[in-house]
Amino acid sequence: MKFVPVIICGGSGSRLWPVSRSAHPKPFIQLPDGSNLISKTFSRALALNGVEQVVTITNRDLYFKTLDEYGAAAPEFTNLSFVLEPFGRNTAAAVALAAQEITRVHGPDAVMLVLPADHLIEKQAAFTAAVDSARELAAQGWLVTFGVQPEYPETGYGYIQKDIDKPLGGGFKVKRFVEKPDLEIAKSYLETREYFWNSGMFCFRAGTLIDEMKLCAPDVLDAVESCLTESGEMKGVSHNSLHLDSDSFARVPDVSIDYALMERSQKVVTVPCDIGWSDIGSWNSMSELSSADEFGNRIDGEVVLHESNNNYVQSRRRLAALVGVENLIVVDTPDALLVAHKDHAQEIKAITARLKKSGHCAHLDHTTVRRPWGTYTTLEEEQRFKIKRIEVKPGGSLSLQMHYHRSEHWIVVSGMARVVNNDRAFLLNTNESTFIPAGHTHRLENPGLIDLVLIEVQSGDYLGEDDIVRFEDIYGRS
Amino acid sequence: MKFVPVIICGGSGSRLWPVSRSAHPKPFIQLPDGSNLISKTFSRALALNGVEQVVTITNRDLYFKTLDEYGAAAPEFTNLSFVLEPFGRNTAAAVALAAQEITRVHGPDAVMLVLPADHLIEKQAAFTAAVDSARELAAQGWLVTFGVQPEYPETGYGYIQKDIDKPLGGGFKVKRFVEKPDLEIAKSYLETREYFWNSGMFCFRAGTLIDEMKLCAPDVLDAVESCLTESGEMKGVSHNSLHLDSDSFARVPDVSIDYALMERSQKVVTVPCDIGWSDIGSWNSMSELSSADEFGNRIDGEVVLHESNNNYVQSRRRLAALVGVENLIVVDTPDALLVAHKDHAQEIKAITARLKKSGHCAHLDHTTVRRPWGTYTTLEEEQRFKIKRIEVKPGGSLSLQMHYHRSEHWIVVSGMARVVNNDRAFLLNTNESTFIPAGHTHRLENPGLIDLVLIEVQSGDYLGEDDIVRFEDIYGRS
Repeated sequence: MKFVPVIICGGSGSRLWPVSRSAHPKPFIQLPDGSNLISKTFSRALALNGVEQVVTITNRDLYFKTLDEYGAAAPEFTNLSFVLEPFGRNTAAAVALAAQEITRVHGPDAVMLVLPADHLIEKQAAFTAAVDSARELAAQGWLVTFGVQPEYPETGYGYIQKDIDKPLGGGFKVKRFVEKPDLEIAKSYLETREYFWNSGMFCFRAGTLIDEMKLCAPDVLDAVESCLTESGEMKGVSHNSLHLDSDSFARVPDVSIDYALMERSQKVVTVPCDIGWSDIGSWNSMSELSSADEFGNRIDGEVVLHESNNNYVQSRRRLAALVGVENLIVVDTPDALLVAHKDHAQEIKAITARLKKSGHCAHLDHTTVRRPWGTYTTLEEEQRFKIKRIEVKPGGSLSLQMHYHRSEHWIVVSGMARVVNNDRAFLLNTNESTFIPAGHTHRLENPGLIDLVLIEVQSGDYLGEDDIVRFEDIYGRS
Repeated sequence: MKFVPVIICGGSGSRLWPVSRSAHPKPFIQLPDGSNLISKTFSRALALNGVEQVVTITNRDLYFKTLDEYGAAAPEFTNLSFVLEPFGRNTAAAVALAAQEITRVHGPDAVMLVLPADHLIEKQAAFTAAVDSARELAAQGWLVTFGVQPEYPETGYGYIQKDIDKPLGGGFKVKRFVEKPDLEIAKSYLETREYFWNSGMFCFRAGTLIDEMKLCAPDVLDAVESCLTESGEMKGVSHNSLHLDSDSFARVPDVSIDYALMERSQKVVTVPCDIGWSDIGSWNSMSELSSADEFGNRIDGEVVLHESNNNYVQSRRRLAALVGVENLIVVDTPDALLVAHKDHAQEIKAITARLKKSGHCAHLDHTTVRRPWGTYTTLEEEQRFKIKRIEVKPGGSLSLQMHYHRSEHWIVVSGMARVVNNDRAFLLNTNESTFIPAGHTHRLENPGLIDLVLIEVQSGDYLGEDDIVRFEDIYGRS
């Protein structure tokens, strides 16, 4: 029987601002071990038994970024499919879309494993065992949830109550789902030992999912089916991909799979598991990934501490000094700084909400922006000039382009560039430069085997990123 | 009678780190009103009656910086003299040196007013009146201190006790000096109304000072006299200047004028005054210069606050967000960040001490470095390249120089440059560039009327600032 992991890579992780941004959300942020949640999720899926293909549902702007992470984690695994969303539309839409696609390709008996890309699971063997149990139950026609044994009375998670009278395979039928409880109720859940954290992972036959949605959420299924008939492949994407049509996707109800289906269906079971699960939902849980010093401080970067206890500090680019403070979260990025009390870690999302409202760009992306060909970092920006550091991966190529309002000086500081500058094409070696006047068609490529690093100095009356005419692009962006 | 203000510009202000650095100490740091303490001190001195000349004692590395501030504050006042120290040697040395120089030029009857450059005085009229009283007493042969009426029981200041039985002109004879008291004692001082804060300002005849030092601190006076015979003018300095000889200056005892003289002499009087004095000795007193919002937060820069009270935040280059915190000092600079509790503001100097000990450069200077010709800012630095933004003032000129190990690309992004590149001299306009290979003699000047802004990209195996051969320098640095 076909078994297909489906990775859902969405969510903004606004409680992890300023490291998490709209264009660089939680699955991609660097963990203390140097890795990130999306690549861990991918590796975890590949380590399961009998995985031939992985389906990923994500925003179309995250496609290249996701591909980079997959390539770094497992370059040899290339049987990837993507469902690319124009915007987020909650999990019911994403799961239904994946089920339809998997049914179309593999038939209704294929078993899907839905994995959010922004969770951490520390015990791979226990996870594999839980999935194996879930697969058996899924093959029998159950919608399987994974119930995580609670370790403390968390009020930020949903809970699943098992029906102790109805054991089933390695699991239990589900009695009910509960939204985030208050502390007293969460404590009582912990005592009864009938309740589990709802991990947000699911396993089921694609056909079961569709049949149950027909019963419980027909509006979602209908809207998803209409959307599929309007959607097609994405240009410039090398993998099997479905690029969702914006207008019809916007008509899919914005509901979670829990609400639309799991809380209503009679076929829901749960497999209890102890897999070291965490959703890294705040800087507090993130901080627990690094070890504490004797004063309870957890440090990521160059930090000087004086009379300070129980703080978490992430400052990877600059020196940070703490004097006489405790229980703080200090997170430093090149363009934004956060100082929060640990007891208020959940309220950090209020900051991103306010930045969004005021149109401030610090919720959108970092000063270093990832592109399919590499990255660029804005080092300095003033009214009439802008300085960027551009890194192009081996084989990477910026689009053939032209600007109306700005000229550009390019200086290669590391590696080798191939340059098109109007009617000339030539190689530019380390420590060589070229000047591209406004109106000149130009292209930058890295023909070499090591990263190309180039300093670009832009001059002109208008320096907006939208002053670009793209003629050709190997990533389909023209 | 000659009256000469003597500005002592020293001290590191390590409690105001990370804005205050060794090479950019407290007198120069930008206050919330955009000004700084050195220029305020200079303007305050010039506003006194009958000032024809100002003597400044400072580190030789601060000469150009001081001159810039004086020029900005009062460009028309040019009768400046400088005593330039190779390193700091406390106030007894500085005051004795100034007294000797003033005696040499104006004779022993000249009255000196010693003003530390790192204090704030908010009431100019009251200050002028107090100085006028002090001048009269000084002319009569007294060593005059300025006693500031205490507003609260500060434990960080020294105190002066007046002899209530000996009023004298606008003041009193001094009964005794007291070092920083503890809180209970400071409270009792406040009640008796006999004690004043020792403001660190003094007024006396140059001849009286020398005579009293002969009596009370002959070793200081002897060492200062030896040092003067070894010292001469500083090369490239346009003003009357005395450049102290390092070896003999090192032999001057490292003591304060309070300890060496004021606590011992029988000729000390104090003029009580209410002049709005503060020594801006910590971030707490600095924060009081900005106004508080309804939640007691004082903000300098772009700051988003959520559920936060009574904080001081200075973040002029980046967005800072505070969530659920109170009574914090948050000070952000391009290369270093401070987060301190207000109750621990005095301990911030422990950080600079630790940085010094570990050889970390963040106690020395900022990423933007002032030079006689303008500034440079390091934007990016890696093993084989470095990017600087260079700003040259109109008329400014870097030295004619050469590097063995690095080549430089120069791109003018604003203004006009005059460039010497080996055997060629030419103008470089905005948006033009030139390449200077290693080994080429070169010079950069701003011949224009507006600031020149240039981006320099350095490449090479060794990029240290010490790879420089200076052939000519209009500031005497070759």
